[in-house]
Amino acid sequence: MHRINAGWPILAITLIAAGCATTPETGKAPITKSVTEILAASPPGDWRPLDPENTLYMDLPGGRVVIELAPKYAPEHAANIRTLVKEHYFDGTAVIRSQDNFVAQWGDPSDDVEGAVPKPIGSAKAKLAPEFTLPISADMPFTRLPDGDIYAPEVGFSDGFPVARDPKAGQTWLTHCYGAVGVGRGLELDSGGGTSLYAVNGQPIRQLDRNIAVVGRVVQGMEWLSTLPRGTGPLGFYHDPKQYVPISSARLEADVPESEREHLQVLRTDSATFAALTDQRRHRHDDFYVVPPGHIELCSVLIPVRPVPEKK
Amino acid sequence: MHRINAGWPILAITLIAAGCATTPETGKAPITKSVTEILAASPPGDWRPLDPENTLYMDLPGGRVVIELAPKYAPEHAANIRTLVKEHYFDGTAVIRSQDNFVAQWGDPSDDVEGAVPKPIGSAKAKLAPEFTLPISADMPFTRLPDGDIYAPEVGFSDGFPVARDPKAGQTWLTHCYGAVGVGRGLELDSGGGTSLYAVNGQPIRQLDRNIAVVGRVVQGMEWLSTLPRGTGPLGFYHDPKQYVPISSARLEADVPESEREHLQVLRTDSATFAALTDQRRHRHDDFYVVPPGHIELCSVLIPVRPVPEKK
Repeated sequence: MHRINAGWPILAITLIAAGCATTPETGKAPITKSVTEILAASPPGDWRPLDPENTLYMDLPGGRVVIELAPKYAPEHAANIRTLVKEHYFDGTAVIRSQDNFVAQWGDPSDDVEGAVPKPIGSAKAKLAPEFTLPISADMPFTRLPDGDIYAPEVGFSDGFPVARDPKAGQTWLTHCYGAVGVGRGLELDSGGGTSLYAVNGQPIRQLDRNIAVVGRVVQGMEWLSTLPRGTGPLGFYHDPKQYVPISSARLEADVPESEREHLQVLRTDSATFAALTDQRRHRHDDFYVVPPGHIELCSVLIPVRPVPEKK
Repeated sequence: MHRINAGWPILAITLIAAGCATTPETGKAPITKSVTEILAASPPGDWRPLDPENTLYMDLPGGRVVIELAPKYAPEHAANIRTLVKEHYFDGTAVIRSQDNFVAQWGDPSDDVEGAVPKPIGSAKAKLAPEFTLPISADMPFTRLPDGDIYAPEVGFSDGFPVARDPKAGQTWLTHCYGAVGVGRGLELDSGGGTSLYAVNGQPIRQLDRNIAVVGRVVQGMEWLSTLPRGTGPLGFYHDPKQYVPISSARLEADVPESEREHLQVLRTDSATFAALTDQRRHRHDDFYVVPPGHIELCSVLIPVRPVPEKK
């Protein structure tokens, strides 16, 4: 039946028809290209491959979660996580928390057990100075989103990550949008070394911005984390160790044979394609929309990821 | 171990310690009560019971989803859904879509099959005039959230629902926060009669505001929808009917024997307790926060639901 599918051409990057809604908010002529058309017309140079040294494959029973690390925004944390991964720290650990509309969190299950001996961290560091914000620097590209923000003076995109900035304070930071990966910590600011990681599985958790180190984002396979049964213990921790979801292995893409790699590309967030895509989604030029939103919130901006196209 | 639990006292309404962070954003003296303390001190009159005639129990294999309808904001749609439920329309239907970070959607599976005969809708109406926005009226309470919004001139709360308003246009509408329940429709504005419903399972979908009828929100059991395996068909529809998640029954609370009811209360969003709670969560006065956010986004405001306390 027509009814349901026709009503839902919204987040898909396929099936979206070109439309001709007017855009009263800006007075500009509407963009008539659909998301599909915009992406299909994108030049190859508007996409960048993931860096194998900063791409993490985490294998869960459901499937593979692919995480892109953001070493520019959390250099020490990203480096420590790379060390942990290279030394197989996460192999045999587990997802131990799944709190609805908040986070899935993983690491050494003994972390959660009073008196248990924690898993050795090898040559990784146990403590790291906080990287909750970083000074704005020239090697951090910034494509500003002009729509405004509730939490920060400025928001936008940097190398494929949604970020915020406070130009007056000279600081920038990664934001807690859906799929953001952060480093669990205790009350001490240096207590998060990367052995305990979490991913946002619901609405943005922007209140955590600048209070914890965000190290990257899930670029594929988020559903293997977001659909995990919710924990029934306090804060969504699994009450019973039998509920832990085992991580069979976590590897850097660089350490995975070429034939087993995912070969993904991310749309460059400083590209013309990204600008056109965001504007299309800001104004929703299709027949479904009676009232085009006219604005788009940082975390609602789509950062497309796709397999590297096969050479013709 | 201390590390993880201590780091995550954020969304829980238990385990949150009182703190003494300063609040540079407002200059006001910090509120030193924790969320737990604020809720524990709430007078019984700050809570209201759910209306059994506007509370929907939907039983899935995982458990019960409880939905509060908002008849003030979508009177015709809420009435039609009540008729459908009373006549057992949804019994034996299914969740047929689960799109990551978007929606779970349910209804008659034959809706999705070309040429299939749709399930009869009994005395319910097939088409309803749109109720995407409603005129602001005196019987719609509005507690404004002063933090601003990207999508609407004003946002706040009305009888326990997150809403937006455009005073100039004289319009108000329910918003697509996590757990919001809306009525699927096709391109025709009157094509959503309530046979196909969806719930937001990820970040807010505010772009849909004013473009579709929102009829209520999930107040308990959202996890039974949010953790469903993601559909692998276009837009997250289940590709194979074997994947449909059966709805054994959907009933109004009023039609459920007293002994089988959930007996829930919602914190009144015009109460002093709600104001104090929201301010606590706006400023996060606890030792975890280095930078209190100072602002809170509409969909991040907690609208507590609890079992009716036992009489002492």
